[in-house]
Amino acid sequence: MVYLTRKEHFNAAHKLANPKWSDEKNQEVFGKCSNKNWHGHNYELFVTVKGEPNPDTGFIVNLKELSVLIRNEVCLQLDHKNLNMDVPFLKDVLPSTENVAIAIWNILAPGIKTMGATLHCIKLYETDNNFVEYFGSTNE
Amino acid sequence: MVYLTRKEHFNAAHKLANPKWSDEKNQEVFGKCSNKNWHGHNYELFVTVKGEPNPDTGFIVNLKELSVLIRNEVCLQLDHKNLNMDVPFLKDVLPSTENVAIAIWNILAPGIKTMGATLHCIKLYETDNNFVEYFGSTNE
Amino acid sequence: MVYLTRKEHFNAAHKLANPKWSDEKNQEVFGKCSNKNWHGHNYELFVTVKGEPNPDTGFIVNLKELSVLIRNEVCLQLDHKNLNMDVPFLKDVLPSTENVAIAIWNILAPGIKTMGATLHCIKLYETDNNFVEYFGSTNE
Amino acid sequence: MVYLTRKEHFNAAHKLANPKWSDEKNQEVFGKCSNKNWHGHNYELFVTVKGEPNPDTGFIVNLKELSVLIRNEVCLQLDHKNLNMDVPFLKDVLPSTENVAIAIWNILAPGIKTMGATLHCIKLYETDNNFVEYFGSTNE
Amino acid sequence: MVYLTRKEHFNAAHKLANPKWSDEKNQEVFGKCSNKNWHGHNYELFVTVKGEPNPDTGFIVNLKELSVLIRNEVCLQLDHKNLNMDVPFLKDVLPSTENVAIAIWNILAPGIKTMGATLHCIKLYETDNNFVEYFGSTNE
Amino acid sequence: MVYLTRKEHFNAAHKLANPKWSDEKNQEVFGKCSNKNWHGHNYELFVTVKGEPNPDTGFIVNLKELSVLIRNEVCLQLDHKNLNMDVPFLKDVLPSTENVAIAIWNILAPGIKTMGATLHCIKLYETDNNFVEYFGSTNE
Repeated sequence: MVYLTRKEHFNAAHKLANPKWSDEKNQEVFGKCSNKNWHGHNYELFVTVKGEPNPDTGFIVNLKELSVLIRNEVCLQLDHKNLNMDVPFLKDVLPSTENVAIAIWNILAPGIKTMGATLHCIKLYETDNNFVEYFGSTNE
Repeated sequence: MVYLTRKEHFNAAHKLANPKWSDEKNQEVFGKCSNKNWHGHNYELFVTVKGEPNPDTGFIVNLKELSVLIRNEVCLQLDHKNLNMDVPFLKDVLPSTENVAIAIWNILAPGIKTMGATLHCIKLYETDNNFVEYFGSTNE
Repeated sequence: MVYLTRKEHFNAAHKLANPKWSDEKNQEVFGKCSNKNWHGHNYELFVTVKGEPNPDTGFIVNLKELSVLIRNEVCLQLDHKNLNMDVPFLKDVLPSTENVAIAIWNILAPGIKTMGATLHCIKLYETDNNFVEYFGSTNE
Repeated sequence: MVYLTRKEHFNAAHKLANPKWSDEKNQEVFGKCSNKNWHGHNYELFVTVKGEPNPDTGFIVNLKELSVLIRNEVCLQLDHKNLNMDVPFLKDVLPSTENVAIAIWNILAPGIKTMGATLHCIKLYETDNNFVEYFGSTNE
Repeated sequence: MVYLTRKEHFNAAHKLANPKWSDEKNQEVFGKCSNKNWHGHNYELFVTVKGEPNPDTGFIVNLKELSVLIRNEVCLQLDHKNLNMDVPFLKDVLPSTENVAIAIWNILAPGIKTMGATLHCIKLYETDNNFVEYFGSTNE
Repeated sequence: MVYLTRKEHFNAAHKLANPKWSDEKNQEVFGKCSNKNWHGHNYELFVTVKGEPNPDTGFIVNLKELSVLIRNEVCLQLDHKNLNMDVPFLKDVLPSTENVAIAIWNILAPGIKTMGATLHCIKLYETDNNFVEYFGSTNE
C-alpha cells in the first residue's frame, strides 16, 4: 500500500455564525470570525489516496486525472466563492474548516473509488497556523 | 544604512469590481475576482524600514514597537474584515493589491518617522503566487 | 472523528550534554550540540487534537481557546528561555527534541481533555530538517 | 514510542515511459512526463524512524548518524543523476515517485535497524504539489 | 510606481558542460552538475513588472493576462523539457541559472511592454538555496 | 549585471543586553530578548553577489566555491555557538540582527572580491517574521 497526496488550493470568503443564535452569542463564541460582512482565506487542500502501484505505470492513480477530479469537483465550486452562500454542497453547513473538510471528503470519495484507489485523508489548511484532517467515518 | 523588515498578516474578504461599470463589464475585466458574494485571502504584509542602528541597542527601531504599530494601525483595521465595506481608510478605494499596498504606506509612514526611521517598502502578498511592492511616491 | 492542528512557536537556547559524562564523552556523542556556551533554535510546535465537531459550532474545540492554552502552558514557559536552566517542567530532563515533545504532551493533555477533546499528537520542529512526533504512551 | 524525521534532498532527471509501450501510448498515459530528452525535479525526502528515546542521550537515534546514512545510501546515489540510467538500485524500475519511494525504503530499512530503531515512513516530494508516503509491506 | 510580481514554475532537465571543453575539464569546473546523463530541477520563476495602477481597475497589468503570457512564452517552452536540447530560445546557450534568466528576460520584455507596463526583474530559483536576479542591460 | 544569491544557515544562542546598562534598563528596552540565561534562533543567511556571467561557464561565481567561502568564514564561526561569547569577529558587538549582518558583510566582502564578483547584499533572518538587509557603507 502506497499513499499519494495532491495539493490544490482555493480562495474563498466565509463567516462563522450559527443562524439560530443572536449576533451577541455569535460574537461571543466566534469572535472576529463572525464579522457580518465576511472575511476570507487562501485555503490549501491536500487529498491523499492509497492503493497499490500499477505495474505498468508505477502509479496508484494518474496524478493528472486526480488533479482534474479535485479541480472540477471541489476547486471550481469553492474558488472565489462565498462558502456560506454560493456552494450547493455546503448548503445549511456552518463552514468551519472541520465541516468543509468532511463535505469535500463526501464529494471526492466516489470519484476516487472509480479511479481504482481509496480516499485516505482530506487535509485542509485555513491559514498557515490551522488545519484539519478527516479520514472518513468508521461506517464506510 | 540598514533595512529591517517585519512580517504581519491579516485575513480579509473583498471583491474587485468598478462600481461605475456593469456586472458584465466587471466580469469581463475582473473575472471570478468580481464574484458578487465576495471571496477572500490570507494576506501577508512585509513592512521594511531603513535607518542607522542605534549604538546603544543595535536597533534601527525597536521591533516590538514596530510590530505593535503595524498591528494597531493596519492589521486591526483589516483582519477579519471586508476590504470593500468595513475599512475607513479604504473607503472609495478599489481594493486591488496595488491600491491596498499604497493605502497601507500612507497609514504607516508618519508613525515610522516618529520612531526615528524611514519607511522603505510595503510588500503585500495576496496569494503565494502574487505580490505587490510600493516604495512611496517620488514627491515625498 | 476529525483532527485539528494548531501551530505555535518559541525561540530558545539549549545544549545537549549528559551531566553524568565527561566533556570529551559529551563532545563525542553530541558533537557541536554540546557547545558549553549554548546554542539555540526557532522551535515550531504543532498540537493535534481529535474529536467530533460540535453541531452548534462546527468546532472540535474553539481554536482561540486552544491557542491560548498552548501559549500559556507551553510557549510562555519556553519562549526566550534556556531549556536546560529556566523551565520548571524540564528540570532534570536532557532537552533533546524527543524529550521536550514528551514533556509538552504531559503539560497539555489534561487541559485539552477539559476542553472536551483528546490530544492526538505533539509534533516539534527543531530545525526545518528535523522534527519529532509523539502520540502519547500506550498506557493512557 | 517516539517518531523522528530527517529531511534530505536530491536533484535528478528522469522520464516516465514504459519500455514495452510505443511512444504514442507513453505520451497518452504519461503526457509531458514522457518527454524523450528527460525532465527533472528537486526531490525532498523525509525519513521517519521510530523507537524509544535512549535515557542517556534523549535520542531515538543519533540524528547525525541518520543523516550520514541517508546521504551515503540514497542521496549520493541519486543526486545529480538520471533515475532511469544511472542508479543501480533503480535498474529496471519505472521511476514514478511511488516506485522510487519503495526502493528507498528497501535501501534504508536494514541500516536503520542496525542503529537500533525501526524505519516507519518514506515520504518523497516530487514537487511542492505531489508527494508519496510508503510505510513498508505488511509482510515485514 | 508600483511593482507587481507573478510566480510561475517549470520542471526541467539540464547539464552544465562547455562543449568546447574535455569531460575532465567540465567535471573539474562544474562537478556533479556536468553528469552526462543529465539531472534536473523544479525551477521557480518570479516575474516583476512596474507601472502606475490604472484608476479604473487598480491594476498595473491584469494578473491573469500576465500569467497567460508567462505560461505561453516561457513555461510551455521549458516545462518537462531538456534545457540543453529542447528549447529554441536556449540554443547554443549554456543553461546556467544566470543565462536562463537573461534569456527569459529577452522573451518576456516585449510582451510586457505591449501590456502597458515595464519588465523590472526576472528572479529564477534553481533550488531553495540558489537563485539569480536580472534587471536587464543598461543599454535598454 | 546579474545578481546571484546563496542561502546558508546557522543555529546560535544570544541575548540582547547593553553591558553598560542595569538589568532593569535592559529588561525595559529589550524585554524577553535580554533573558540572562540566553535564548536562540535558527538563522537563515542570504548572500547576494553581482557581476557579469563568465562566457565559458555562464557563472558569475562558482556557486560551490561561494558556498564553501560562506560556510568556512561565517557558518563555522557561528553555528552552534553563543554570539555574545564564542565569536571572535563579534567581540564587543551587541548581537542584534542588524549588527550581525554588518559583521558578516565585513567578513565576506574581501573573499568575494577575490572570486571576481562584488558583494551586493547580506540578508539575515532571525525568525520567519524578522529580517535585516545590509548593502554596505557608502564609502566602500
